[in-house]
Amino acid sequence: MSVTINCDMGEAYGIYRLGDDEACMPYVTHVNIACGFHASDPMVMWKTVAAAKRHGLKIGAHPGLADREGFGRREIKLSRKEVAALVLYQVGALQAFLDAENIAMSHIKPHGALFGMAQKNEAVANGIADAALAMKLPVIGYANCVMSDVFTQRGVAFSCEFYADLDYDGEGRQVITMTHDPVAPEAAAQKVLRAIREGKTRALDGRDVSVVADTICVHSDTPGAVAVAKAVHAALKDQLAH
Amino acid sequence: MSVTINCDMGEAYGIYRLGDDEACMPYVTHVNIACGFHASDPMVMWKTVAAAKRHGLKIGAHPGLADREGFGRREIKLSRKEVAALVLYQVGALQAFLDAENIAMSHIKPHGALFGMAQKNEAVANGIADAALAMKLPVIGYANCVMSDVFTQRGVAFSCEFYADLDYDGEGRQVITMTHDPVAPEAAAQKVLRAIREGKTRALDGRDVSVVADTICVHSDTPGAVAVAKAVHAALKDQLAH
Amino acid sequence: MSVTINCDMGEAYGIYRLGDDEACMPYVTHVNIACGFHASDPMVMWKTVAAAKRHGLKIGAHPGLADREGFGRREIKLSRKEVAALVLYQVGALQAFLDAENIAMSHIKPHGALFGMAQKNEAVANGIADAALAMKLPVIGYANCVMSDVFTQRGVAFSCEFYADLDYDGEGRQVITMTHDPVAPEAAAQKVLRAIREGKTRALDGRDVSVVADTICVHSDTPGAVAVAKAVHAALKDQLAH
Amino acid sequence: MSVTINCDMGEAYGIYRLGDDEACMPYVTHVNIACGFHASDPMVMWKTVAAAKRHGLKIGAHPGLADREGFGRREIKLSRKEVAALVLYQVGALQAFLDAENIAMSHIKPHGALFGMAQKNEAVANGIADAALAMKLPVIGYANCVMSDVFTQRGVAFSCEFYADLDYDGEGRQVITMTHDPVAPEAAAQKVLRAIREGKTRALDGRDVSVVADTICVHSDTPGAVAVAKAVHAALKDQLAH
Repeated sequence: MSVTINCDMGEAYGIYRLGDDEACMPYVTHVNIACGFHASDPMVMWKTVAAAKRHGLKIGAHPGLADREGFGRREIKLSRKEVAALVLYQVGALQAFLDAENIAMSHIKPHGALFGMAQKNEAVANGIADAALAMKLPVIGYANCVMSDVFTQRGVAFSCEFYADLDYDGEGRQVITMTHDPVAPEAAAQKVLRAIREGKTRALDGRDVSVVADTICVHSDTPGAVAVAKAVHAALKDQLAH
Repeated sequence: MSVTINCDMGEAYGIYRLGDDEACMPYVTHVNIACGFHASDPMVMWKTVAAAKRHGLKIGAHPGLADREGFGRREIKLSRKEVAALVLYQVGALQAFLDAENIAMSHIKPHGALFGMAQKNEAVANGIADAALAMKLPVIGYANCVMSDVFTQRGVAFSCEFYADLDYDGEGRQVITMTHDPVAPEAAAQKVLRAIREGKTRALDGRDVSVVADTICVHSDTPGAVAVAKAVHAALKDQLAH
Repeated sequence: MSVTINCDMGEAYGIYRLGDDEACMPYVTHVNIACGFHASDPMVMWKTVAAAKRHGLKIGAHPGLADREGFGRREIKLSRKEVAALVLYQVGALQAFLDAENIAMSHIKPHGALFGMAQKNEAVANGIADAALAMKLPVIGYANCVMSDVFTQRGVAFSCEFYADLDYDGEGRQVITMTHDPVAPEAAAQKVLRAIREGKTRALDGRDVSVVADTICVHSDTPGAVAVAKAVHAALKDQLAH
Repeated sequence: MSVTINCDMGEAYGIYRLGDDEACMPYVTHVNIACGFHASDPMVMWKTVAAAKRHGLKIGAHPGLADREGFGRREIKLSRKEVAALVLYQVGALQAFLDAENIAMSHIKPHGALFGMAQKNEAVANGIADAALAMKLPVIGYANCVMSDVFTQRGVAFSCEFYADLDYDGEGRQVITMTHDPVAPEAAAQKVLRAIREGKTRALDGRDVSVVADTICVHSDTPGAVAVAKAVHAALKDQLAH
């Protein structure tokens, strides 16, 4: 039984920095690179693709809502077609930098509120599915929700992620906040191991909820992100798939 | 000896319309589709790609400066790397909609001030060349200038365009204005024929200047654009390459 | 008993046109000028302020969501503080052009989805109220909803608008669409007269709903907008307040 | 003979941080707050205005080019009217937050490439003058250049700034870079004292150039900015005007 570690990267913008991507790269297997809508810009994307290639990582697109000010973390009402177009545009934009670096794209992982909306809204999930099928790419998604139902039904290849550094609510959903709170590296690693072995995690309300952990997500903008990634990587090192 | 007719399209944006793309499509061979920086958005791009495919047209990317308010017609100082990244991003974004419609990309044509800057600035011309070589795509460019020198030297495949609906200055350069003035369809067609046959056109200062007309450009936002395209198409119909 | 006619204007953007503002100006008393977030830009705003001043019209700010691609007609989840900041920013921006033209601002009218959200969401209504109270300006709002309740409770001066060119649903709310359908001028004028006299209009479901018509809104981007404005103006000419 | 210390602030954006504004505030007399074009957003502007008010500082607007990706540090070709509109818009937007906090605006200081362009381009300098005169506000500008000539001629009140943390070229102009290099606090303070006392500074080419230092600028995004501000403040404390 194997698992992967994915990390959202390339979320800098112009002169603004966010997270220490290069420091996290030794501890992950897959990177999800922001595509210029919720974060990033063409220069940041290119640089991040080149760095991930040097580290031998799998590179996926991390499309988000067109809302830089809200970092893609505020819901915007969109139609299925708008979602499909939004995702296609961003995946294609990132693909150009992979082409320039002669490397293949590995996957798509929707960002922030787009990811969150797809967990509960069929039109959004279908829009993402439309784009993924058109680009023939698998998706990093979420289990036991509208998104996984739609993906399963439509034959979209996907894996389910578990968050090392986010809290869970009573329905087994990750709690998306505008900025991330720090987490203790060892506690994060133990939480991850339990999610993989037992398929369970402790929710904010104190009860256990079911989760699926095909791939572990660590966020590079969480305070202490490198230490968290390192601890999770150490805990999983015998079962990592590359 | 064959020639093509290209037209900038997909320059609508959200609820804003610009030019009647579908009405012009019967009279051109190649479309250059705006990529979301100076004009267009993901929904417009997808719709325009689908329409061009229905009309059997060759589809190219029309990347511009990141300046929607100025419609990409105001110069912005950029480095070679910034230009390359800007072009790659936009070409890739359009490519995704071609992938979704199972159709290959034909070429790149830089827009507005980006095109104008490349005619005189080596860094800008090299940035475009970097992107074109990375994407293995030919460029619609301009003759007898820094751009053509750089492209020739670096082995970038390119054709040179002549404008049916723009004025020329005394150095044989097109005069870029924020909005286009109306032109008489028959006069435009005659101007095009002369450019192809004699390699000359009358500049604003009354003298003849040398031009190269591998491909004829008609703008869809020129008042009366459809009539101009129709007249040019009729004049060239025996020598059009598709 | 007097009434006013207000019209959203200044919704052009860069080279993109929208509605024929100057043609509508003779038939309205108040203009609501877009402030650069959902539409407009500094040049358009200044030009529209100057035109409205020439026509002797009352000028208000028409702030919208930061979503040009969706023309401010797609809901975005915002906090009360975000709404207040968004409205203050836009009202202030417009105020500068009024200062430059030595004319006082008359009112605020929220645009599109911001207006719609304020009708049902207390945080949004309070954010608008915060901005209006800080700027000491009355608001053009809507009756019998969360917005009017919040405004009444907090002492925000406001008038309620009735739409000459939009449909109403069974709860007496205007139906916001991405683009407006054409309406018959005479029917629009009759609908307006009935709303003023009887406080009622026919909803899409065929039943009458209660409405308040302190001010009549005509949209300049509705096809045939000038004729609609003219007909409404003619019907109301004896009771118009300036 | 008195002098002031001004600092560009409020240059954060969404979740992105830039500079430690609050830590610098005790060491400056005037803040120039970014207005949402090259940096900042409505929430950041409001928060920065409130903080500056708590510290009893004079608050000015810091309008920049509409280029967040380039942080307003890349030249864009603009007409005089475009510059005037751009500045008015941004000054007005900031004014709203001052209105909300019951505090008067003190001045305008153009940012980055807009400031640099005004030093050599008459249309740009006139555009800024148009806005300043319309808003009846003094400008923080630069000596011995097109900007100071235009301001003097048109009766725009202005003071000239000297940079504690930027290099000077052989023509006595500050060297604008995309990111700022660290500077030694004591050396910066000495450089400032010499500029004030002698009206001279050492340029990059080793020769002395003439400068005018009515107000000293420290940048909050320079590495070690707080120490630089503190050293400059200590050196000037007996002659600071508030």
